Amino acid sequence: MGSQISIERNQNPKPKPDQSHLGFGKYFTDHMFLMDYTKEEGWHEPRIVPYAPLMLDPSAMVFHYGQAVFEGLKAYKTKNDDILLFRPDKNMERLNISNERMNIPPIDEAFLIEAIKELVRVERDWIPVAEGTSLYIRPFIIATEPCLGVRAAEQYTFIIILSPVGAYYPEGIKPIKIHVENKYVRAVRGGTGFAKTSSNYASGLKAQIDAAEHGCSQVLWLDGIEKQYIEEVGSMNVFFKIAGEVVTPALNGSILNGVTRDSIIRLLEEWDVPVTERKISMEELYLAYTNGTLEEAFGTGTAAVISPIGELQWTDKRIVVNKGEIGVISKKLYDTITRIQSGQIEDTFGWTVDVGAIHVP
Amino acid sequence: MGSQISIERNQNPKPKPDQSHLGFGKYFTDHMFLMDYTKEEGWHEPRIVPYAPLMLDPSAMVFHYGQAVFEGLKAYKTKNDDILLFRPDKNMERLNISNERMNIPPIDEAFLIEAIKELVRVERDWIPVAEGTSLYIRPFIIATEPCLGVRAAEQYTFIIILSPVGAYYPEGIKPIKIHVENKYVRAVRGGTGFAKTSSNYASGLKAQIDAAEHGCSQVLWLDGIEKQYIEEVGSMNVFFKIAGEVVTPALNGSILNGVTRDSIIRLLEEWDVPVTERKISMEELYLAYTNGTLEEAFGTGTAAVISPIGELQWTDKRIVVNKGEIGVISKKLYDTITRIQSGQIEDTFGWTVDVGAIHVP
Ligand SMILES: Cc1ncc(COP(=O)(O)O)c(C=O)c1O
Ligand SMILES: Cc1ncc(COP(=O)(O)O)c(C=O)c1O
Repeated sequence: MGSQISIERNQNPKPKPDQSHLGFGKYFTDHMFLMDYTKEEGWHEPRIVPYAPLMLDPSAMVFHYGQAVFEGLKAYKTKNDDILLFRPDKNMERLNISNERMNIPPIDEAFLIEAIKELVRVERDWIPVAEGTSLYIRPFIIATEPCLGVRAAEQYTFIIILSPVGAYYPEGIKPIKIHVENKYVRAVRGGTGFAKTSSNYASGLKAQIDAAEHGCSQVLWLDGIEKQYIEEVGSMNVFFKIAGEVVTPALNGSILNGVTRDSIIRLLEEWDVPVTERKISMEELYLAYTNGTLEEAFGTGTAAVISPIGELQWTDKRIVVNKGEIGVISKKLYDTITRIQSGQIEDTFGWTVDVGAIHVP
Repeated sequence: MGSQISIERNQNPKPKPDQSHLGFGKYFTDHMFLMDYTKEEGWHEPRIVPYAPLMLDPSAMVFHYGQAVFEGLKAYKTKNDDILLFRPDKNMERLNISNERMNIPPIDEAFLIEAIKELVRVERDWIPVAEGTSLYIRPFIIATEPCLGVRAAEQYTFIIILSPVGAYYPEGIKPIKIHVENKYVRAVRGGTGFAKTSSNYASGLKAQIDAAEHGCSQVLWLDGIEKQYIEEVGSMNVFFKIAGEVVTPALNGSILNGVTRDSIIRLLEEWDVPVTERKISMEELYLAYTNGTLEEAFGTGTAAVISPIGELQWTDKRIVVNKGEIGVISKKLYDTITRIQSGQIEDTFGWTVDVGAIHVP
């Protein structure tokens, strides 16, 4: 199917942005990948075209009923000028899981990886090389059918856009302060928490602002039923090291199955560090803190890889982790994953995928 | 502010659709209302322009993080050629409640009603007159800022589109079959259930399809915590008449505050029919059914006004209401509200708003 992708070159390429001030998701490359779905034709007309506004009828269903899913992964340029993707198969598998939940027709995963590779090859000069930078890849699907009926749409567009992004920690890793959210709920059993759908994010904005007002940079989400069990932190999965064991909330339907989360579990297993997926309550965490067994805490996700947690604010209680410093395991995980991603150390897991050289058309 | 609305006429008006096959939300009029928001200028440049596709950057935040709210109300043409809106103040109040939840900047409600009136005046020839038809009005707001950061957007567009819609019951009111949903959850305390935001709808599609597979046309949503208490039916509020008393679930944060719901409560009070807003469980409903005190059941919303429920399927139990016929109170409510809306009987509540004659520019 890869050969079916048509390419229309952008005749007016943009100047590339300054690699020391990229930020996140602010600059976009010269091309994008598009593919449409209709009931009659299925997914069809895969094409790479100049990056340009989308034209959508004001009644396009995505605006009204939010049928939309997305993914996020990164491409890294190695010292040898190879371009590596990190576990794109996991992201494309999750895209179809999200599709299933949101009633969007599935897409062939192998073809999606080909599409990503082809677009990244076309934009290879956009991949930043400064320490910690990368090319963020955002595949997404929106319901485009022009109709106000509340039902699954019969027309969709799949799009991939690319954004050169800056180092997440330009001044070195700094543990963050977390506000444990007691009022708002991100997701609940029977809802859409395990899917990467747009709605999970807008609904979290108010809690994020609350956290900022408490001097915190992220929210710790508790379960929607008992408001006791820990689910995620901001848009990251969360891990705790308690008395030598690493613990992360089990995937229960309201937690996103993070690619970084999975990679960490596998690395810890490889290193013979005990790691468990299970329920963990705030009470348990607080108890571990008070009896001195809470050793490390960190969020995990594609953007930051590892985001150490220095302090949690839970109602009127403060939980300070490892004196506000990054922990030994957190640091080792960060170093190992980022070095595998950028080809600096050997990838014994077969996680990285080389996008290959461009096929000059 | 009304006078600030600029009008650009459509030079290529479309032919009007056949009034006997309008359906819902399939045809759109020749013009739309637009207004933009930026941090610097606030809401600005209100304008009526030819109906046309929206041009949005592929990174526009609405596609990714779902910051979007909407409203739905109707305009009716009376026998005297007046045009009436039904309680537009309630819809615009709710729009700002939705805005607040979704971190979208509020809009002056009186101005919004002026905008609706002006657009409806421009499109007055589009209002269908066949029995039961009306002009559906869809105001909505989307986050347009081109950025992939997960935060509240700093740019939005407010849009109003209009759609001539058909009679909801072309063959007379027919009670519907309802599937009581046990797996999926629409909304939970701390979530966005009380807001009219796009995400609440996409997440309900799977349950809707499940219901159809059970031969039912709608879903009865239970609370997300105990899965015992009744919340809404499809995208309608729900009422039951039990032993002479009309009961509807109390607004608890996960239920939408329907304009039709509020109007029904006020009509019942006026008629001295006992009406209560409180928690009601499936157990209680089933008990009322088995002891013969469940007299009527109906959904309420702008689209259908009253949608009588003939049967509920709850796990392996069947609850048949009023032998599958529309009840006396249901019918009286339907007749009264639709006649007030279309100016056929006197509006003693001051609910209808005349859009007035067009100001020929
Ligand atoms: C809600 C949420 N949880 C967790 C993650 C981490 O997932 P991953 O490691 O695949 O980036 C993300 C980000 O993708 C997310 O949006
Ligand atoms: C989820 C939901 N509940 C209830 C309603 C009924 O509200 P209203 O009577 O204002 O149309 C609607 C439709 O607007 C809705 O979408």
